[in-house]
Amino acid sequence: MATSAAAPGALLLKKPVKIACIQLASGADKAANLAHARAKVQEAASAGAKIVVLPECFNSPYGCDFFPSYAETLLPSPPTAEQSPSFHALSAMARDNNIYLVGGSIPEQAPSKTSSSSSSSEANKTYYNTSLTFSPTGTLLASHRKVHLFDIDIPGKIKFKESDVLSPGNKVTIVTLPEYGKIAVAICYDIRFPELAMIAARRGCFALIYPGAFNTTTGPLHWRLQGQARAMDNQIFVALCSPARDLSAGYHAWGHSLVVDPMAQVLVEAEESETIVYAEIDGERIEEARKGIPLRDQRRFDVYPDVSQGPVKFEEEEEE
Amino acid sequence: MATSAAAPGALLLKKPVKIACIQLASGADKAANLAHARAKVQEAASAGAKIVVLPECFNSPYGCDFFPSYAETLLPSPPTAEQSPSFHALSAMARDNNIYLVGGSIPEQAPSKTSSSSSSSEANKTYYNTSLTFSPTGTLLASHRKVHLFDIDIPGKIKFKESDVLSPGNKVTIVTLPEYGKIAVAICYDIRFPELAMIAARRGCFALIYPGAFNTTTGPLHWRLQGQARAMDNQIFVALCSPARDLSAGYHAWGHSLVVDPMAQVLVEAEESETIVYAEIDGERIEEARKGIPLRDQRRFDVYPDVSQGPVKFEEEEEE
Repeated sequence: MATSAAAPGALLLKKPVKIACIQLASGADKAANLAHARAKVQEAASAGAKIVVLPECFNSPYGCDFFPSYAETLLPSPPTAEQSPSFHALSAMARDNNIYLVGGSIPEQAPSKTSSSSSSSEANKTYYNTSLTFSPTGTLLASHRKVHLFDIDIPGKIKFKESDVLSPGNKVTIVTLPEYGKIAVAICYDIRFPELAMIAARRGCFALIYPGAFNTTTGPLHWRLQGQARAMDNQIFVALCSPARDLSAGYHAWGHSLVVDPMAQVLVEAEESETIVYAEIDGERIEEARKGIPLRDQRRFDVYPDVSQGPVKFEEEEEE
Repeated sequence: MATSAAAPGALLLKKPVKIACIQLASGADKAANLAHARAKVQEAASAGAKIVVLPECFNSPYGCDFFPSYAETLLPSPPTAEQSPSFHALSAMARDNNIYLVGGSIPEQAPSKTSSSSSSSEANKTYYNTSLTFSPTGTLLASHRKVHLFDIDIPGKIKFKESDVLSPGNKVTIVTLPEYGKIAVAICYDIRFPELAMIAARRGCFALIYPGAFNTTTGPLHWRLQGQARAMDNQIFVALCSPARDLSAGYHAWGHSLVVDPMAQVLVEAEESETIVYAEIDGERIEEARKGIPLRDQRRFDVYPDVSQGPVKFEEEEEE
């Protein structure tokens, strides 16, 4: 796909659009989660949203113990309905509602290696935290495997180590939505690494979309601040979509799904319960921010390098 | 100077230290401004501060009309007392109070060119917005010329164009304070360009110090957010030091001098009036943040480049 920035003066977002972040309450029953997501996507579309976002791990509980049992095989694409019921459910939600759908994320299992020397034991399986984006015709537009795995240990507060089970993705994901422009999709902990946002914005995206599940320790410290920082530094819209908080689950998501504008102002922010937050976003706001505070023309790439000019990996390397 | 990061486990800040940001009220009388700064630096030192910061353009009003008439010649260094009374005043403040002094900034006039073809007319003179940092013995440790000039135009709110009068600096400034470690110094609008902070933090600084004068439009939008964003993304202390607000002046500074910790929490923040804010900062807090959320080990420089690995300009290019 083209990744060069749009010509100056052209709107990065071709026309205003309503975006929805569905702060979904999920449980242990995958089929029920998919059905529930379907109902909420329909609700968002009925309210006029044309870009709809689901949260990280929307089809399962969040936790290393759950990734293998909920994982689905996505490659070679498209997978069969048996290989990935979630792929087909998301495709249908997008098509049936005529929307772009950033399908949160799901645990992905890489196809088994065909080498005779490979073992089929659990330890040899490869898992990812993967976000699938679909077009209004139900076509898969892009797949993003979480690049930065969530390994943190704040004593007495929270310890989590995705890398015990998951493998990381290896690319920056920019998705072209033909009617609107380009978005970047990354997942949760990816937001802490500003390079992804800098690259995406400098290569012409109008929004950064992060399905994510911060927790009740890092959420109040950094969730909104992350969204505002990425928006401010890159003069771009940012949407963060969290699961609803479930105090009966092992992991307590922060909630607080939100949308931030290119001047870093929070347009809408949820509380912790299930809800849908909506924002009308307009490319004129990006231009206005960038004309007023013209960072794009003021960066000093004679003093420091431009991280967006690479080398940057955009294409997934073959895993097999 | 050495710019490589400290060995893992070593504290970037060797021992706890009290830092002071003097939110100085300045006027049109340079000698009075220097005398007032001297009194406030003495007050901060008496309160135990060992690193003291003055605001941007502390010896003059802020505005393009004022830069030429307040400008002083700093090169070749050290200048004479006639060439730069502010240099000598700052040096004495540092020495007399046995402190490290980040001397806000002053308008600098580059030495006249000696070429016979050069004109001495005003239009041919070169000015900078320059920060001087002195050691407790009064020795100049570093000079930073503002790299990113403040040219913004938010219709109906604020228009300012430093580049009408000023020329930009061309380097990232890292200063070694032998007793404590390394700091980065940059000025105001420089903070909007995250590369300076990323480079400084990854090359082992314990704090980013920004004398700055946001205004009553961008201040409430972005001042604290900038400080918190730089601290969060780089897990480092950040100090922003503003002039006090003077509604009788042409430029209304936001004030709100503040210090942020490596978890992005605001340790102290002023209102708009003249005051001194203090914070005890401790290298253990940097280590704690980086152990808890180990971004330093998780960055994916196989996917995107490391901006701190250059090419980065650290040394000033000769201007003559």
